[in-house]
Amino acid sequence: MPDPRFFAVAGPFALAEIAEAVGALLAAGADPAKTLSDVAPLGQAGPEHLSFLDNRKYVEAFATCRAGACIAPAALADRAPPDVAILTSEAPYKSYALAAALFYPVSAPAPGVHPAAVIDPAAVVGEGCRIEAGAVIEAGARLGARCLIGANVTIGTAVEIGEDTRIAAGASLSHCIVGARVSIFPGVRIGQEGFGFAVDKSGHVRVPQLGRVLIEDDVEIGANTTIDRGAGPDTVIGQGCCIDNLVQIAHNVRIGRGTMIAAQSGVAGSARIGDFVQIAGQVGVLGHLTVGDGVQLVGQSGIIRDIEPGETYAGTPAVPIRQWHRQTAQLARLARGRASPE
Amino acid sequence: MPDPRFFAVAGPFALAEIAEAVGALLAAGADPAKTLSDVAPLGQAGPEHLSFLDNRKYVEAFATCRAGACIAPAALADRAPPDVAILTSEAPYKSYALAAALFYPVSAPAPGVHPAAVIDPAAVVGEGCRIEAGAVIEAGARLGARCLIGANVTIGTAVEIGEDTRIAAGASLSHCIVGARVSIFPGVRIGQEGFGFAVDKSGHVRVPQLGRVLIEDDVEIGANTTIDRGAGPDTVIGQGCCIDNLVQIAHNVRIGRGTMIAAQSGVAGSARIGDFVQIAGQVGVLGHLTVGDGVQLVGQSGIIRDIEPGETYAGTPAVPIRQWHRQTAQLARLARGRASPE
Amino acid sequence: MPDPRFFAVAGPFALAEIAEAVGALLAAGADPAKTLSDVAPLGQAGPEHLSFLDNRKYVEAFATCRAGACIAPAALADRAPPDVAILTSEAPYKSYALAAALFYPVSAPAPGVHPAAVIDPAAVVGEGCRIEAGAVIEAGARLGARCLIGANVTIGTAVEIGEDTRIAAGASLSHCIVGARVSIFPGVRIGQEGFGFAVDKSGHVRVPQLGRVLIEDDVEIGANTTIDRGAGPDTVIGQGCCIDNLVQIAHNVRIGRGTMIAAQSGVAGSARIGDFVQIAGQVGVLGHLTVGDGVQLVGQSGIIRDIEPGETYAGTPAVPIRQWHRQTAQLARLARGRASPE
Repeated sequence: MPDPRFFAVAGPFALAEIAEAVGALLAAGADPAKTLSDVAPLGQAGPEHLSFLDNRKYVEAFATCRAGACIAPAALADRAPPDVAILTSEAPYKSYALAAALFYPVSAPAPGVHPAAVIDPAAVVGEGCRIEAGAVIEAGARLGARCLIGANVTIGTAVEIGEDTRIAAGASLSHCIVGARVSIFPGVRIGQEGFGFAVDKSGHVRVPQLGRVLIEDDVEIGANTTIDRGAGPDTVIGQGCCIDNLVQIAHNVRIGRGTMIAAQSGVAGSARIGDFVQIAGQVGVLGHLTVGDGVQLVGQSGIIRDIEPGETYAGTPAVPIRQWHRQTAQLARLARGRASPE
Repeated sequence: MPDPRFFAVAGPFALAEIAEAVGALLAAGADPAKTLSDVAPLGQAGPEHLSFLDNRKYVEAFATCRAGACIAPAALADRAPPDVAILTSEAPYKSYALAAALFYPVSAPAPGVHPAAVIDPAAVVGEGCRIEAGAVIEAGARLGARCLIGANVTIGTAVEIGEDTRIAAGASLSHCIVGARVSIFPGVRIGQEGFGFAVDKSGHVRVPQLGRVLIEDDVEIGANTTIDRGAGPDTVIGQGCCIDNLVQIAHNVRIGRGTMIAAQSGVAGSARIGDFVQIAGQVGVLGHLTVGDGVQLVGQSGIIRDIEPGETYAGTPAVPIRQWHRQTAQLARLARGRASPE
Repeated sequence: MPDPRFFAVAGPFALAEIAEAVGALLAAGADPAKTLSDVAPLGQAGPEHLSFLDNRKYVEAFATCRAGACIAPAALADRAPPDVAILTSEAPYKSYALAAALFYPVSAPAPGVHPAAVIDPAAVVGEGCRIEAGAVIEAGARLGARCLIGANVTIGTAVEIGEDTRIAAGASLSHCIVGARVSIFPGVRIGQEGFGFAVDKSGHVRVPQLGRVLIEDDVEIGANTTIDRGAGPDTVIGQGCCIDNLVQIAHNVRIGRGTMIAAQSGVAGSARIGDFVQIAGQVGVLGHLTVGDGVQLVGQSGIIRDIEPGETYAGTPAVPIRQWHRQTAQLARLARGRASPE
């Protein structure tokens, strides 16, 4: 039951409708015609709500919940109270995501340009865009249809933005080409100069940063994240990448499709990150490295060598995760030995 | 002697007045009627200034200081030059804090709405608020009395803010309920969607983020920090928490009362942090964990398991601090052994 | 060939002109009168472009490049294709930087105050400044000549800014004195209160933060970086320092001249960092420490003790880099031994 001041609910929907939309099956005893009016977390759900169980950690809450229906893995369905209709799913969290999107569909922004927005006459704003107060759009910028440009956003000279892209409050973009259906969170900084210096004994010389940032379609970029423009080559964020808050992407970095980077990680200059890589929080990737497709990097790891596709690495300097587990265990063993010699 | 362009001083105050206000005692020889006009650091203080000694590292500076008076621990009082009046305190830093607040009281903001602020007619602004230029306050937002909304701040639809809360330049808030006497620093991002995806072999599906952020009374949130709204449950920051700059608080996190989190730390989704926890800088807390009341986490530690109340942990993966010290010592010993075998 | 929508090229220039400007020598066979119209990365350069080789990693690209001319170390000059004119340099990257600055000179901002900027009548704006839309400049602020104040920037009361300083979109400054030719990137936060509390059993008391931030000449500060004002002393960033994105500089920190700090590093309160220190990414420096001149800190290291000038440290807790390499090797050896005992 999301707060109606912030979220507008659709529905109600019948169980059968929901099951179809979310790829779940009605368990025995669930009435396909039963209607639900909303989604809610396990602990707060009442008889008119749909909830879900994904993490075994919450099975106690599941066993005592009062939800009208619950999406759950088949193996745990019998732990539900008898009044709770069960929708079994092989991917309960994904099914819940689809259910929540059914109840809370994302609508196109209400079109219009606020009188306190500042749009240069030489900028092009697509049909159906919404430009909020305090937004500044500079000369030569081009926005596709139905974009949402939030309050106090700055879109720099000649920046291009695709259709249905959303840019939240206070973000600033320059020297970049952004695709369609991209979501840029508040305070994001895209396109500023990379950190490029030629250093020698006489000090450092600033290297002009003459590349751009290319953000492909369907990318999401978290709050206060920074993505520098290339030094000569472009910085590229591949289609469907999801980047969390406070992440640093340095100049010339290229990231493949569908890669996910959690909060506070950083990728140094000219590194190449493959497709569908998963980078946990507070990870650092050294410059000029290659991280292969499908790699997984554990939180706080420090990557200082190329990593082959499909590997999982952890630690600083990062090593294969099995080695890291052994190192960690050996270190604990050493510490014990020292404290209480055998 | 703070720069008068930036800080307006009250006073002067007599030593007796100061001692009472700050919970200190006049040492032998200190004249209760002596007046002081300002506070100053040890190295810069002159005869009209009050200074303080808290860290033994600065005892040399104390021994040669020219301050009119100095707050110090009784045990070090005899290290002061003879002209310096001493106020002894069991908590010199706290006493100094109270003295500085006496000389530099925080006043309510000068009320008024700048003509370049943009306030939706359907927003409610309390009495005595100050709304600065470029601030944007959207429909349904409600501000308590005497709030300060800084330049270029964005307050989203239906956001509620308690009395005497201050929000500094360029911050943006959405989907949140904020208490009284909260201080939000420049560039803070509150209420944006959490980083929630259901991932399987066919890619990832965005999980609608339908919760809020609840910020209780007397909280402080540092510059460019990001706090995501809940996915279904709310993200909650407890009464009196102090969060430093560039911290990441993910969706569904619940933090108890009086907890302090230093800069660049991150708490992943659905973690629970107790009351009066102290988290140093660059710490990472994994999702879905519980960190008990009064826990202390050393800088750069990586927390991957629940931690019992009152424990102190360090390292990645974090271990009890005594174990960490032993591990560190053993590792150094191993390295020496390898380099110069005995 | 930078994108002309974002970058305006000067030139063309003859090889002889370029060689002189960048401190390089024409290799045998290079025609001094040959003109080039632009710079380009190795992989994209054509016959009218100047490129460069600095990192041996890219020698294959060099060997097959189509550039008109290329700056390279003398030792690798013979790896170039025969049509490529070579300019040999002992510091190819620095020479390239100078060449790129020749083709893409930084020009003074076009002067003018946008009508949607808000400048308090009691602020002073120097000659030739450019103040963009949504910028807010408060009473008593003083800007030197030819400053660029970007869109939606906030300059607080009494802030002073030297000549030719550039402040990019959405940044906010208060309680600070900024030198000449400083470059402040988007979203930077300077001058907010430091994280200062006096903590005891009865809770914490806020310590008034009565110092300033002093930014000396020729400093660069990366996007979304935060620099807190001093608690009593000032926070000082020395002449020519370069600070990357998302860095945290706490109250009272003093940084010497020419020091470089990469992204996501943090320096805790009252630490002193010397001249020409190099701090890599995600490093943490504990409060009240001294890091000597010329020190190098490896990425992700955690500094918990003073460091003598000229040392290189790595790890958490940081140790001399040779020790860190031995520790890392020993740990890997232990892990192997455990897995497959000899």
